[in-house]
Amino acid sequence: MDCLFCGIVAGTVPSQRVDEDERTVSFMDINPATEGHLLVVPRAHARDLLDAEPDDLAACARTAQRLAARVVERLGADGVNLLSCCGEVAWQTVFHLHLHVVPRYAGDPARDDLTLPWVPTPGDAAVIAATAERLR
Amino acid sequence: MDCLFCGIVAGTVPSQRVDEDERTVSFMDINPATEGHLLVVPRAHARDLLDAEPDDLAACARTAQRLAARVVERLGADGVNLLSCCGEVAWQTVFHLHLHVVPRYAGDPARDDLTLPWVPTPGDAAVIAATAERLR
Ligand SMILES: [Zn+2]
Ligand SMILES: [Zn+2]
Repeated sequence: MDCLFCGIVAGTVPSQRVDEDERTVSFMDINPATEGHLLVVPRAHARDLLDAEPDDLAACARTAQRLAARVVERLGADGVNLLSCCGEVAWQTVFHLHLHVVPRYAGDPARDDLTLPWVPTPGDAAVIAATAERLR
Repeated sequence: MDCLFCGIVAGTVPSQRVDEDERTVSFMDINPATEGHLLVVPRAHARDLLDAEPDDLAACARTAQRLAARVVERLGADGVNLLSCCGEVAWQTVFHLHLHVVPRYAGDPARDDLTLPWVPTPGDAAVIAATAERLR
């Protein structure tokens, strides 16, 4: 196996690590969307959200929350997005589960010019109801 | 308090509910980004990611994972994004913590035309290292 994030967890691949606990390791994204963009990964290899041990996913969520508080406190972020991408179609590029912790900054387009990846528009209620039925 | 999602949890506000457990309730987003777009919320009110009880957040993550598997199985999704928005600057519009579960469909722009909200571009390694130091 030749997994970039397993290498970062093991320390054989360099990273700017900022946090670790029993189940998770967190480090800076080298392609930051905004200042302070972090990735949280489980120590145990899992390809993606679907493949992950639920306890590892839950641990990643707890770590992401801790780091969200930290970017607000230490970097003065005004908000935070969490994002996880499962599958190539969902923009996953490294196939070891990771949660993006993306600090957001108000009124500072130089540091933060992200836009929501969809335009919120009311859906058709009947279509939504039919889809819900398939998911129950 | 007049919280839309507390109303949905209580059942006093209608929704297309698809899943519930001890700590979480999941229902269709009425402004779907793609077919099958779901929201997962904790039963207990929390304004956002920073405000949430860690156990509730972890429960939401576990539920989101379960629903991600379900949209793949039942709707034929090819991937899934999880997104949480904390703060107005991060596109939060309802101030009760929620995780978006967004099914993704390959090669079907009519159902799915989302684009990643940033262009991955290498950051300055020295700046990233300095930011990491502030976050440790
Ligand atoms: Zn790995
Ligand atoms: Zn509420």
